[in-house]
Amino acid sequence: MNLKIALLGGDGIGPEVLAQSVKCLQAVEETFNHHFTYTEGLIGAVAMDKYGSPLPKQTIDLCKASDAILFGTIGTLKYDDNPSARVRPEQGLLQLRRELQLFTNIRPVKIFPTLINKSPLKKHVIFGTDFVIYRELTGGIYFGEKKLSEDGTQASDLCEYSEKEISRITHLAFKAAKNRRKKLTLVDKANVLETSRLWRKVVTRISESYPEVQLDFLFVDNAAMKMMLDPNDFDVILTDNMFGDILSDQGSAICGSKGLLPSASIGNEHAMFEPFHGSYPQAAGKNIANPVASILSTAMMLSHFGLHEESLAVVIAVDKSMKKHVVTRDLNASSKYGTTQVGDFIAGNI
Amino acid sequence: MNLKIALLGGDGIGPEVLAQSVKCLQAVEETFNHHFTYTEGLIGAVAMDKYGSPLPKQTIDLCKASDAILFGTIGTLKYDDNPSARVRPEQGLLQLRRELQLFTNIRPVKIFPTLINKSPLKKHVIFGTDFVIYRELTGGIYFGEKKLSEDGTQASDLCEYSEKEISRITHLAFKAAKNRRKKLTLVDKANVLETSRLWRKVVTRISESYPEVQLDFLFVDNAAMKMMLDPNDFDVILTDNMFGDILSDQGSAICGSKGLLPSASIGNEHAMFEPFHGSYPQAAGKNIANPVASILSTAMMLSHFGLHEESLAVVIAVDKSMKKHVVTRDLNASSKYGTTQVGDFIAGNI
Ligand SMILES: CC(C)[C@H](C(=O)O)[C@@H](O)C(=O)O
Ligand SMILES: CC(C)[C@H](C(=O)O)[C@@H](O)C(=O)O
Repeated sequence: MNLKIALLGGDGIGPEVLAQSVKCLQAVEETFNHHFTYTEGLIGAVAMDKYGSPLPKQTIDLCKASDAILFGTIGTLKYDDNPSARVRPEQGLLQLRRELQLFTNIRPVKIFPTLINKSPLKKHVIFGTDFVIYRELTGGIYFGEKKLSEDGTQASDLCEYSEKEISRITHLAFKAAKNRRKKLTLVDKANVLETSRLWRKVVTRISESYPEVQLDFLFVDNAAMKMMLDPNDFDVILTDNMFGDILSDQGSAICGSKGLLPSASIGNEHAMFEPFHGSYPQAAGKNIANPVASILSTAMMLSHFGLHEESLAVVIAVDKSMKKHVVTRDLNASSKYGTTQVGDFIAGNI
Repeated sequence: MNLKIALLGGDGIGPEVLAQSVKCLQAVEETFNHHFTYTEGLIGAVAMDKYGSPLPKQTIDLCKASDAILFGTIGTLKYDDNPSARVRPEQGLLQLRRELQLFTNIRPVKIFPTLINKSPLKKHVIFGTDFVIYRELTGGIYFGEKKLSEDGTQASDLCEYSEKEISRITHLAFKAAKNRRKKLTLVDKANVLETSRLWRKVVTRISESYPEVQLDFLFVDNAAMKMMLDPNDFDVILTDNMFGDILSDQGSAICGSKGLLPSASIGNEHAMFEPFHGSYPQAAGKNIANPVASILSTAMMLSHFGLHEESLAVVIAVDKSMKKHVVTRDLNASSKYGTTQVGDFIAGNI
């Protein structure tokens, strides 16, 4: 298969971990006889510094012309210190999601058996945890109208959802549940929010087309609680943009290291793959960042294009790195392996 | 001291746990020579069934004429099955908060040393955890305009904050931090929301009047993560209504049992005290509900009126019940003690 891949390293540790992903994809090309091309584009603080915009037009064009986008991470200390700035690196990411209509963010939360002791949760609580969050990514309070009164004393954000926005992600979530343990939990705040009530109505109606999937509802506060007390009871969680942001980060903490979890952002025409984790500018350039989340994002990408055997080969190589303790220092404080060594090991085992 | 106390038992286990609180307050009256009067009012599903409204006028009048309100819990299975209903028990609680302008919800999260093994978190993670959430309670997306388009395909909720709404709770949170470990964390989503940016601006300005308190900022997704990984690093968390709802439930899960944590909702003229937990209609009438959260709410009430010795006496009696294993079955599956026995024991030790 031929694939055109856009590489957006972004800020902080993004470019370093992305470089390991490219190594792994090159190993896949060789082993499975594919042909991938890679083109780099700028986004985030690095793009602001060079072009004055966190999402330059040439980056959008590059993404639109690619089959898939591999994304690193975004944000630097320089801009983090001023969260009220009008232009921020994160806007590059938000605009890109919107521009490419990547409306579904898929975040699997799964414990690596070898790393179960890394979880802050007790073993009997976390054992067997394996769920996936379907987070709506291009609507809700993230993109509704924002207002600041002229005198600066009143602010507002509008949370909006339409039936169409809800139904397209809902179908994807039900399809995923069908292929998993057949349980879908809609997380909302329907006892307070009108948008949540619309979600319930639309999701309930769509559930009739998926009779094999059990649908249940959970208020977001209860969901945050349950993720601590019974995380292994979840299968597919479907939720809106804001709640999904919070719950997926909570979910990633379950796994003990933030450096392990990949994610996919899918639209009808485009798809982007990125680690869950942030840009850790403090770690940038030190060869200590964990490349596993980024590498597992390539596995999600391969699956997305139907290359399941190839995807599995990446996952197995990652598993092997864990079993052989070829891991970065976040997982083993006395490890002698850095970002590139872990990347080499995984690529070498594909 | 004379105090007029309104008792709103509400639904589910509310009335049962509240009855134990009254026992404890009667013990306080006797031991410390105070005179409290108690008047019952209806709220929630029970009020809907009797008066067709979850917050009848006589209940509002009663609350306004009282020095303090002790609240039980709200919600029943009957109404939970239909979250899209226009009138719901929870609206009684929301209206009451708004009507009495109870703008600050205070939710302490503290691990009982004797119960540390009940936490889903590992001991080294949870050890020493002792923080308090200041949640704004009468603004934000809970109370902003809600819209549903005529054809039912579009919905919206408006999240609004004014400088005034932010500053009144902020002062209370800084004062609390001053009396604690002198650290205040504002949790928001300032990289996305205009209201969050207003929070940062107002809180930063007010922080100048509290130079002894260290202020830091955390995005809500990071806060949810940190509450799993380093909960003992928090001191005072200040946040908006929606984020506070989620984080405080996550915080209560840390403690292992939902039946332990009290809360206070404070305004300029009124104050209400209630357990964190829900109404557990399944447990109602079975004498199995844990009364500790409700009893500890009375301790918060006593402190609120400057009765610190009295408050401490309640807390010490609760501690004793734990040390002597006089606890309900949520804490010890083979316990022979029910709600009333635990209430009697605690009241008897005041
Ligand atoms: C960087 C930020 C705007 C972003 C979000 O809130 O969506 C991030 O937290 C994420 O979850 O991808
Ligand atoms: C019952 C519900 C409306 C309420 C809220 O969301 O505020 C509850 O969850 C709480 O936290 O007190």
